[in-house]
Amino acid sequence: MNRSELARRAAFHATVLATLSAAACAGNSGTDPSAPVRSVPCPSAPEPSAIAPASSAPKLSPLPPVTGGMWLLNDFPSERLEREHGFKPTKEWLDHVRLGSVRLARGCSGSFVSPSGLVLTNHHCAHSCIEQVSTAKKDYDKDGYLAVAEKDELKCPNTEINQLVAITDVTQRVNAATKGLADKDYNTALKGEMSKIEKECATGDEVRCDVVSLYHGGQYHLYKYRRYQDVRLVFAPEFAIAFFGGDPDNFMFPRYDLDVSFLRVYDNGKPASTPDYFGWSTTGPKEGDLSFVSGHPGSTSRTLTMAELEYMRDFHIPARLLRLTEIRGALTEFQKRGAEQKRMSTSTLFYVENGIKALKGRREALLDPTVMNAKLAEEKALRERVQADPELQPASTAWDTIAAAQRKLVELRKPYLYLEGGYGFWSELFGVARSIVRATEELTKPNEQRLREYVDSQLPATKQQMFSPAPIHQEFEIVTLALSLSQLREELGADHPVVRKVLGKLSPLELATKVVKGSKLADVKVRKQLFEGGKAAVDASNDPMIVLARSIETEAREVRARYEELVEAPVRKSSELLAKARFKVYGTSAYPDATFTLRLSWGQVKGWSEPGREVRPFTEFGGAFERHTGQHPFALPKSWLDSKDKLALQTHINFVTTNDIIGGNSGSPVLDKDARVVGLIFDGNIHSLGGDYGFDPVKNRAVAVDSAGILHALDKIYGATRVRDELSAGAKK
Amino acid sequence: MNRSELARRAAFHATVLATLSAAACAGNSGTDPSAPVRSVPCPSAPEPSAIAPASSAPKLSPLPPVTGGMWLLNDFPSERLEREHGFKPTKEWLDHVRLGSVRLARGCSGSFVSPSGLVLTNHHCAHSCIEQVSTAKKDYDKDGYLAVAEKDELKCPNTEINQLVAITDVTQRVNAATKGLADKDYNTALKGEMSKIEKECATGDEVRCDVVSLYHGGQYHLYKYRRYQDVRLVFAPEFAIAFFGGDPDNFMFPRYDLDVSFLRVYDNGKPASTPDYFGWSTTGPKEGDLSFVSGHPGSTSRTLTMAELEYMRDFHIPARLLRLTEIRGALTEFQKRGAEQKRMSTSTLFYVENGIKALKGRREALLDPTVMNAKLAEEKALRERVQADPELQPASTAWDTIAAAQRKLVELRKPYLYLEGGYGFWSELFGVARSIVRATEELTKPNEQRLREYVDSQLPATKQQMFSPAPIHQEFEIVTLALSLSQLREELGADHPVVRKVLGKLSPLELATKVVKGSKLADVKVRKQLFEGGKAAVDASNDPMIVLARSIETEAREVRARYEELVEAPVRKSSELLAKARFKVYGTSAYPDATFTLRLSWGQVKGWSEPGREVRPFTEFGGAFERHTGQHPFALPKSWLDSKDKLALQTHINFVTTNDIIGGNSGSPVLDKDARVVGLIFDGNIHSLGGDYGFDPVKNRAVAVDSAGILHALDKIYGATRVRDELSAGAKK
Repeated sequence: MNRSELARRAAFHATVLATLSAAACAGNSGTDPSAPVRSVPCPSAPEPSAIAPASSAPKLSPLPPVTGGMWLLNDFPSERLEREHGFKPTKEWLDHVRLGSVRLARGCSGSFVSPSGLVLTNHHCAHSCIEQVSTAKKDYDKDGYLAVAEKDELKCPNTEINQLVAITDVTQRVNAATKGLADKDYNTALKGEMSKIEKECATGDEVRCDVVSLYHGGQYHLYKYRRYQDVRLVFAPEFAIAFFGGDPDNFMFPRYDLDVSFLRVYDNGKPASTPDYFGWSTTGPKEGDLSFVSGHPGSTSRTLTMAELEYMRDFHIPARLLRLTEIRGALTEFQKRGAEQKRMSTSTLFYVENGIKALKGRREALLDPTVMNAKLAEEKALRERVQADPELQPASTAWDTIAAAQRKLVELRKPYLYLEGGYGFWSELFGVARSIVRATEELTKPNEQRLREYVDSQLPATKQQMFSPAPIHQEFEIVTLALSLSQLREELGADHPVVRKVLGKLSPLELATKVVKGSKLADVKVRKQLFEGGKAAVDASNDPMIVLARSIETEAREVRARYEELVEAPVRKSSELLAKARFKVYGTSAYPDATFTLRLSWGQVKGWSEPGREVRPFTEFGGAFERHTGQHPFALPKSWLDSKDKLALQTHINFVTTNDIIGGNSGSPVLDKDARVVGLIFDGNIHSLGGDYGFDPVKNRAVAVDSAGILHALDKIYGATRVRDELSAGAKK
Repeated sequence: MNRSELARRAAFHATVLATLSAAACAGNSGTDPSAPVRSVPCPSAPEPSAIAPASSAPKLSPLPPVTGGMWLLNDFPSERLEREHGFKPTKEWLDHVRLGSVRLARGCSGSFVSPSGLVLTNHHCAHSCIEQVSTAKKDYDKDGYLAVAEKDELKCPNTEINQLVAITDVTQRVNAATKGLADKDYNTALKGEMSKIEKECATGDEVRCDVVSLYHGGQYHLYKYRRYQDVRLVFAPEFAIAFFGGDPDNFMFPRYDLDVSFLRVYDNGKPASTPDYFGWSTTGPKEGDLSFVSGHPGSTSRTLTMAELEYMRDFHIPARLLRLTEIRGALTEFQKRGAEQKRMSTSTLFYVENGIKALKGRREALLDPTVMNAKLAEEKALRERVQADPELQPASTAWDTIAAAQRKLVELRKPYLYLEGGYGFWSELFGVARSIVRATEELTKPNEQRLREYVDSQLPATKQQMFSPAPIHQEFEIVTLALSLSQLREELGADHPVVRKVLGKLSPLELATKVVKGSKLADVKVRKQLFEGGKAAVDASNDPMIVLARSIETEAREVRARYEELVEAPVRKSSELLAKARFKVYGTSAYPDATFTLRLSWGQVKGWSEPGREVRPFTEFGGAFERHTGQHPFALPKSWLDSKDKLALQTHINFVTTNDIIGGNSGSPVLDKDARVVGLIFDGNIHSLGGDYGFDPVKNRAVAVDSAGILHALDKIYGATRVRDELSAGAKK
């Protein structure tokens, strides 16, 4: 599945590591018989022969076709869509889609489905809220939740929803600020200017502003969001049906999941007014229908250099996988301690399993000679064109610069990941402590000189995390912190100065127990006092978690600075050069790599074939009952078993489309031409896992819940008449 | 550490996958200034120029130097040793070393150190015995064990010790049997002839005979062992000092481990007479001393083709690592259930952690461009010589055949590993059940047609496992079986026919609980009844573990047969061709890859330097007290703390040498020129982890316990006067 938390982390790391310019359209797809079935024709791309000098030129390798499409809404290829599918979206249509789409700040997508702030998203996107509003006595994760009346809607402690209200191109301003600078100076100037632009834009806590780097530095756009921090839970089904089939069926199809939840955004204590909402299709889609997905794909790496892909394959992905499999082993055993321990760790385990499966799929793609040979051919074709074009000479050394930075990364990666990248101190309380220590330090500096996550425009989101009243489970905190401290000691070595300083004479478990039990930071009031007391209060604190965070601050900042100087800065600068070369070679009508910003993809409702099987595009309610074994993860909840007689078992529950999506798209609406919701993205099939590196139109499929199926379940199984009626009102829209 | 169980499994898999001929000596080491410091000169290797035709020959790449040396005792380069170190071992000296050395059948080495069957080995080599003779009330693993009198020596349920009494060259006979055959027929004939030779040799249960393939099929030797199945525990220190520093210090140096145990072999209920025992050095070695290590290195892969190394790097090692890290996570949590759970799983956790560290080290070597470029150069140099030599034409396609087999292996590996390779049904009881099911089936066939582990010569070892009275812990069995069934489902997919058949409507945990609790196989009598009842009894059994083993027998045998036909056979045949080419190119005075058979290595007591530090070759007792924190794994046992005043703290405890060792060498004696024990191998340093692929003489070091340190601890800490006196008698030898 395209899960939120891990997808978010994946996006973070991939973003940190991703560097190159956008994938682009196929210069030769019209004539190449070996081109994939749905390879994307490219109206504006010059023919390869047009690029090389006319005579005495070396023969250039062909430009390989590029497929898929995560299009910007302010640069949408409407005419091409009209040519291919006879439908040309208007500006109004695109604006409506933009305003009806929302982003969940921690890594998911969603949409408004009523004029009163009702938000459709996945169960797994609301999972942390569901877990946080549950208690040992009321387990809404297990039992589901339905707010019968408005007053029953439960406030999520830690959920932020953003609606993209405006996009401004600020490329020229950013370029002016970095002109002529290299490496570290370039990086510093760039970040400073981005923070400045964001600060000017963010006029209040309800406004969020991000400068977004597109095409790996080819363009910079300012995204202005309406920020909703009062988000409430309206409806969630039982975990057992939201994630029916569990990890074994994850990324698989046929599938039978009701991975749905409804939230509502509030404004001044009242349901917010959201006139730009999507209507609801009561029938769902048909095979072959044109389908749009509007959402926030987290990150793709479709234009990485070979050196970066090899780093991913050999170091980054294996290290993450090894960490996650150990965590899975530990959490699976931890859950056996009892029902309460199971409750407090289910969501984490779920993200971990999802991450393992996704990373294994990505690794398999990178080990597939077909994929890597295609990447090599792409790189070769671009290199040849850069060498042949005097104007592109600045880019000619970019590949080597990036490769050298990857070798540096191999050296730096362990201290970076363990001290700064979240591998070494896995604990909610530690995260809070570090935020407080850093925020109070950073806020003593001018906005432009701060670490990115503490600039004024980012502070509201940071504060929401820092002051979240979500419960923190001591017992679970001790397990996660001890485990990550063991891994820290293993990877850096018992005699590493930081390891010695952190552990002293204690074992990882003892230290974790001591700091978790001794810390008062579970109390939000204590956090606020420290934050408001500023650096002096933090320096004086003897809270053991604050002491721990403080104690590694010098080394953590140092390794971050080294990473930014020796890896991030040269890669960023070189990637920008390659992006410019790519623009010149491929033309500009291409989509940028995903960056957890709004994109629109088109596709069709369509199954696929693979050796030994034909996969139909739809599944029905009846199939869920056939797959039911009574044992987790194939156990339907009681509500379903009790309602079986009332159900029309041939009703569609899930379907697949050819839309190009990736982690972060979870919760995206599937829309028809009339911008009505016909489905809800919640997963990709197993062939989608290589989608980070390229889109395979033959087998890569997005997996969605059917809008008719959602309505049927709300009506016949959950008696959710209030939600049903609210959606049905939209059905007439 | 070079640990037994995992080392054994590693050896098994590596042996299954390893294929090529021996590493060899350096044709150019005398003149090449870039050759490593201790690169091995090669008296009989022809000069590269002598190989290529005299004129109009293509210029050949230089043959890279080869280092290290795990020499056969019946083909030992005594003259070379004399030239280099002024010491020429006689045949008598070599025979004495061979007869004084022993092998622990499950994956370790050892030596006789008294005329009455006293065996010196590592604590970690006796660990499974120590765990098996412990009970919930008497935890000898935690508290150590000392047999005050002979009658207190405790019988190990499951330990077999072998002494190599004769070696016969049977190459001609094997070659005659396989002459003219290819692939599957070749493989069948080869195995049949090996089983036949072994059967003729094995004249009783006290004789074990193995036909050993050396140089990947270049030679076949018949190894005849005296088999001791009555092995008793004499002395073991506390786990806390045997493995002081635990996983963090594993493969590290400086080090402070008393990784020592003493066993005794019995004959007819009396201590066996072992006249070929090693004397004991009361002083230990000095820096620079010539040191011999006699033992059983499990497996090396120093002559694998690039295709095989890439398979190791990209598939084999990552898959094993992911499995082991998940197990580590689970076992670490499992241990928190209580002291008894900790006791029953400590040894397994220890092998798991050791395996993780070793595999990570091997993977790092395979990701090191220096290592891989050297391997590539080696392969290129050999290929060129094969192409240039008409006589070697049969070998010219061997690399491609092996590469194609690796691609086939990528396809087959998951079902092979999960159904047949031990990944999918991790349970002692399942192992017993499968052995009974298979043995009763195989014994209905003629000896030559059986699976290798059930031929007459292998049956005594298989039976010792099958009928071992070692306790089996239900609670732990359920955890390991459930975990491995989850992994089976994950890797093969929930809809794989075998997964569906095995799990039915049950979850992995439910199935594991049902078959472990329902099985009567914990009772050795039940096993014997079934075995003696033969196939009919097994077919009629409704013991759920037997039923489970029986249910996957067809598919497991089928995938094994496909693996043997499509991977093993072509690789074996091609490897033999490459071995012959290698002989012609390099000459024959080289050592074969390790095969868990007896080898002798020479080296020196010597530290090393690396960036930022010089490592002295010795550590002292005092250092252990300095490293003591009081917390596991840096907590010295009470016996040490209580004895501190009585100790001479400057006494050596551990030291390092330049001997070439690998997993399986654990427990090997370090001998001086007089064949006296000066130390006991128990580990390699971190730089030794790449030793699977080549020996780095600059930094690769073997780690040993000092013989003087052992005596000091026995005397001052453990009051083990009987053992001390028995050794001291040998000191005068």
